[in-house]
Amino acid sequence: MVRVAIMGATGAVGQEMLRILEQRKFPCSTLKLLASKRSEGRSFPFRGRLHKVEVLKKTSFKNVDLVLASAGGSISKEFAPVAVKAGASVVDNTSAFRMEKKVPLVVPEVNPEDIRGHRGIIANPNCSTIQMVVVLKPIYDAAGIKRLVISTYQAVSGTGTNAINELIDQTADILEGNPVDCDVYPHQIAFNCLPHIDVFFDNGYSREELKMVNETRKILHDDSIGITATTVRVPVIRSHSESVNVETKKKITVRKLRELLSKAPGVVVVDDLKNNDYPLAIYGEGRDETYVGRIREDFSIKNAFNLWIVSDNLRKGAALNTIQIAELMVRKGWVKPGAAG
Amino acid sequence: MVRVAIMGATGAVGQEMLRILEQRKFPCSTLKLLASKRSEGRSFPFRGRLHKVEVLKKTSFKNVDLVLASAGGSISKEFAPVAVKAGASVVDNTSAFRMEKKVPLVVPEVNPEDIRGHRGIIANPNCSTIQMVVVLKPIYDAAGIKRLVISTYQAVSGTGTNAINELIDQTADILEGNPVDCDVYPHQIAFNCLPHIDVFFDNGYSREELKMVNETRKILHDDSIGITATTVRVPVIRSHSESVNVETKKKITVRKLRELLSKAPGVVVVDDLKNNDYPLAIYGEGRDETYVGRIREDFSIKNAFNLWIVSDNLRKGAALNTIQIAELMVRKGWVKPGAAG
Repeated sequence: MVRVAIMGATGAVGQEMLRILEQRKFPCSTLKLLASKRSEGRSFPFRGRLHKVEVLKKTSFKNVDLVLASAGGSISKEFAPVAVKAGASVVDNTSAFRMEKKVPLVVPEVNPEDIRGHRGIIANPNCSTIQMVVVLKPIYDAAGIKRLVISTYQAVSGTGTNAINELIDQTADILEGNPVDCDVYPHQIAFNCLPHIDVFFDNGYSREELKMVNETRKILHDDSIGITATTVRVPVIRSHSESVNVETKKKITVRKLRELLSKAPGVVVVDDLKNNDYPLAIYGEGRDETYVGRIREDFSIKNAFNLWIVSDNLRKGAALNTIQIAELMVRKGWVKPGAAG
Repeated sequence: MVRVAIMGATGAVGQEMLRILEQRKFPCSTLKLLASKRSEGRSFPFRGRLHKVEVLKKTSFKNVDLVLASAGGSISKEFAPVAVKAGASVVDNTSAFRMEKKVPLVVPEVNPEDIRGHRGIIANPNCSTIQMVVVLKPIYDAAGIKRLVISTYQAVSGTGTNAINELIDQTADILEGNPVDCDVYPHQIAFNCLPHIDVFFDNGYSREELKMVNETRKILHDDSIGITATTVRVPVIRSHSESVNVETKKKITVRKLRELLSKAPGVVVVDDLKNNDYPLAIYGEGRDETYVGRIREDFSIKNAFNLWIVSDNLRKGAALNTIQIAELMVRKGWVKPGAAG
């Protein structure tokens, strides 16, 4: 049994963590809910008992073994090292440490062994990367991956609860013929597609696009994979969809591909076109699995195919993967930094 | 001056044609509005005078030089040959004749000369193809195109006015907490993305995806271009967005690319990331131009880059391109079949 704290307990992902810890009967003896001063006084039920939110402080990590962090990158940067110093390990859902060389970046179905011998911080990858690599891993193992061309269809909940509210408010305003307010996004998201997620760099890519490039290579331990991405916010509340073109090193038939994917852990193949069955964002919501369909050969080059991948961005893309990492650490005795390193 | 008939005058595209003929002062001496029996009795203003809808019959093409057709593929298949036999030429916005060898498939900025010597029917390409080839043409001429990987974000107006109503009704129902009805699409389109446009074939592709492959090759007169597409319906009312990955034969710098595109007819470059300026569906609506942005090198292979292309699917994607073909025919004296052939 471990003593757990959620950092950012009142956000969209923190709330999802609370639900998942309960659903999966996570072996925690105590649970601390940490958030900013704004959330002081709020409380949330967990295992039939109300838990009060505590204001996050440098001293919050006393009697905590494991911190699940999702309060934003700058908060993680400030508080994760403090938690580690106090003897806890941190599974961090922000981008703060993901690309640091000595920080494992982990999807349990893909690279669980990377956690072994960690130094206190384990990073949870970006939502759009997680759902893609769960599907790519068996393909990578069977045929190698030469190049990926990705276009995403990402839900507003990836931005936070304020973005969900903005989409709903704008939609209502448009239906009623009222003018629209834009606070969270620079342009109207209702009935629109924004090819803009996170900040832009001088090379013309957004940070979200480069995350997909760099995190995928790190998780698969292969910097030779050619990757390019266009990440797009769409007026969907929950679950990201992705159109992924995969060029493999070796030939792999669609039949073999289906067979591989239908056996892959955490992956469900939904691909019955005769019955109009393919993965859909509205059906991904609240589910743990990553769904893949529209599996078909790409006839434009040798050894390539297209996939349509959908998963709940708040669950597998964030809270669930974080907790799956924590479960693995408990099961393997890897909770303490350096354990079994 | 020519005598014009619109076949399918009461549909979303037919109505847009009516507006565009008036806006562009198309040199027509008479205008007939043809539609099915359902629309009998309706009338629409054109140049300050109400025009009554006539029920489409085999005898409708008397005293007509030019038919603009957008009443569905089966109607075109039945009536376009009748119109041609009666001495008229048909610019057909349906897919009925697009891939027939002797039928020109035309985007005026790209392959105007293909109209020369036509046999009465000129096909207007599919909406998602038109906006892409307008942008690709100058690139093709400058550097050649080896391969395209396309993912689309297509508006519901491409399906018709009933689909616009379905999106709006479903959206209102969801905001009010009511159950949702699906009539036009097999699944909910509100707050969702459907990787399904038109029917599916045994090879796993949808007809819309194969249209993008086959029509692009026909328009650019180059069957050697490798093309693969994933076409997706999104909860947007009007204007299609497209994420297009282009591999060229020769090296072309991003700087040169911008220069080429900014000079291309019918194309406007919108690509100022510092000011969050990129093409957006909501700003494409009602405009004649095709917008391109997010222009950036694809570092995953040699000689490739990514583009984000947006255009009004009812205008450049349908009604406008049809009328631009008609204008070209009038200007060049190509209205009569075989003229200057």
